[in-house]
Amino acid sequence: MQKTKITKLFNIEFPIIQGGMVWVSGWKLAAAVSNNGGLGLIGAGSMKPDLLTEHILKCRKATDRPFGVNIPLLREDAADLVNTVIRENVKIVFTSAGHPGKFIDLFKINNITVVHVVSSLKFAHKAESVGCDAIVGEGVEAGGHNGLDELTTFSLIPQLINEIKIPVIAAGGIMNGQTILAALALGAEGVQIGTRFAVTKESSAHINYKNAVLNAKDNSTKLILKKLAMARVIKNEFSTQITEAEDNCADIDELKEILGEKREREGIFNGNLEEGMLEASQSSGIITNIPAVKELMKNLISEYSIALNNLKAAK
Amino acid sequence: MQKTKITKLFNIEFPIIQGGMVWVSGWKLAAAVSNNGGLGLIGAGSMKPDLLTEHILKCRKATDRPFGVNIPLLREDAADLVNTVIRENVKIVFTSAGHPGKFIDLFKINNITVVHVVSSLKFAHKAESVGCDAIVGEGVEAGGHNGLDELTTFSLIPQLINEIKIPVIAAGGIMNGQTILAALALGAEGVQIGTRFAVTKESSAHINYKNAVLNAKDNSTKLILKKLAMARVIKNEFSTQITEAEDNCADIDELKEILGEKREREGIFNGNLEEGMLEASQSSGIITNIPAVKELMKNLISEYSIALNNLKAAK
Repeated sequence: MQKTKITKLFNIEFPIIQGGMVWVSGWKLAAAVSNNGGLGLIGAGSMKPDLLTEHILKCRKATDRPFGVNIPLLREDAADLVNTVIRENVKIVFTSAGHPGKFIDLFKINNITVVHVVSSLKFAHKAESVGCDAIVGEGVEAGGHNGLDELTTFSLIPQLINEIKIPVIAAGGIMNGQTILAALALGAEGVQIGTRFAVTKESSAHINYKNAVLNAKDNSTKLILKKLAMARVIKNEFSTQITEAEDNCADIDELKEILGEKREREGIFNGNLEEGMLEASQSSGIITNIPAVKELMKNLISEYSIALNNLKAAK
Repeated sequence: MQKTKITKLFNIEFPIIQGGMVWVSGWKLAAAVSNNGGLGLIGAGSMKPDLLTEHILKCRKATDRPFGVNIPLLREDAADLVNTVIRENVKIVFTSAGHPGKFIDLFKINNITVVHVVSSLKFAHKAESVGCDAIVGEGVEAGGHNGLDELTTFSLIPQLINEIKIPVIAAGGIMNGQTILAALALGAEGVQIGTRFAVTKESSAHINYKNAVLNAKDNSTKLILKKLAMARVIKNEFSTQITEAEDNCADIDELKEILGEKREREGIFNGNLEEGMLEASQSSGIITNIPAVKELMKNLISEYSIALNNLKAAK
């Protein structure tokens, strides 16, 4: 697989980044991805600062290659997480869900490479103008939280490529070597992969969650909670309850009451398939196994080579 | 650009099909696409049988290359349109919006190549099992009517490739050579292009409509009428009215009353930008000119070659 601006930016072998995911990507998954030539990200979204410190230290023990931390900027204690990565000398940070300029000066003083996750041109321009080093353009097929404009990977990436000068990493629906090749064909310099990495041996998601993704079909996911914080989830009892309320024009307070608390933890980490929130990609139907990261990375790279050779060989 | 199962199926030079579009793709556009090495389709969706006959005859005068007709099967007089294409000896039919088996025996007796447009695996399996020769997998980024599962091009195509044996043509967000390359990287054997061809000199859409697409940004389109017949349109006064009603849980009768009649004609053909329904792709932001079909085809092919060479050259 080729070198790109992204392999150079992070000094990694393949332009493959493992997305930071709540309850899924601790040090174990991140270190495994980095050890196999990608960039692993610890997902700080489901961690308090102390736990994040622990994961960073363990990750550094488990790999001598580059890894990073994903920080959702809307977290009330985002500043504490930011201070944690600075104190622990992490040099790669992915930010999401919030204004990319919020901590950028602090990051830059500390020589941290900063990538912001965006869902539209407006946020991409913001990220570029405040000085981010790259962006992740995430299409609405991605699992978990998505932008309200519902731009798809196939629509978003070419529009970013046309207007944005910093490197673009494609996310949303990246599942195999063919989809990596397609993302690079669209002009992306790398890919960020979420759900596919959530269903690996090293992922800390509950086995019930992994099996739910394995069993998903093309129409198994749905966008819910557009009025609160839109997310793509596997349909279950919880999502049906929310959808029914939404179809009946429930207001934000009613939705908040149904949502309650800790639904992501309940679904992804505790494996409660009916009451939990099972964030997963629209392309989950492509996933048919629970490999170790080493095996998955090997497959991604060989599928990519085969797909590229097919394109080259065609007359 | 390479030969594929689709170039062979239709005996065309490039695996590029111009989607049949109401009020847009008459004989003039279809003939221009076929004359330049793609496959042009007359969109019968906005034609009565007599007018369709006229367009078929004119198209045959204007090109000696293969062309086809798109028939929306949900039309009340679909059988009349089917009889028209048979009587006029058209040998390529694309069907959409309805059960693919409805007229398949009649088509097959008359040696007609049949392609059905699908939005999910379920419909794809149906199309394959009744004997269609190929399918168009159309992602939700496409302009106009879309499937309720809202599967994106980037998610739908790889899932179709995994399960369907007949050739898959990708549609939804195909705008330039890079997106054609990405579609083929995903495993498609060809592409169907709608909105990009709607904004050409030979398209019969009103100049106001063409300019509205030219002015569209990444967030200019929206899915409306999910309860009636979901469609992607450029946001305007009409769509805002519908969206407000939908947000207030309007029932189907209320929506039908706001919708009224002939909104597509009003927007696309008459150029009424506020009251009309402006069906267009989520990727309209990529379109920056109104070329002749000849120039557009040339550009698609050269962009494709450059993008493929970039992939090959990368180390």
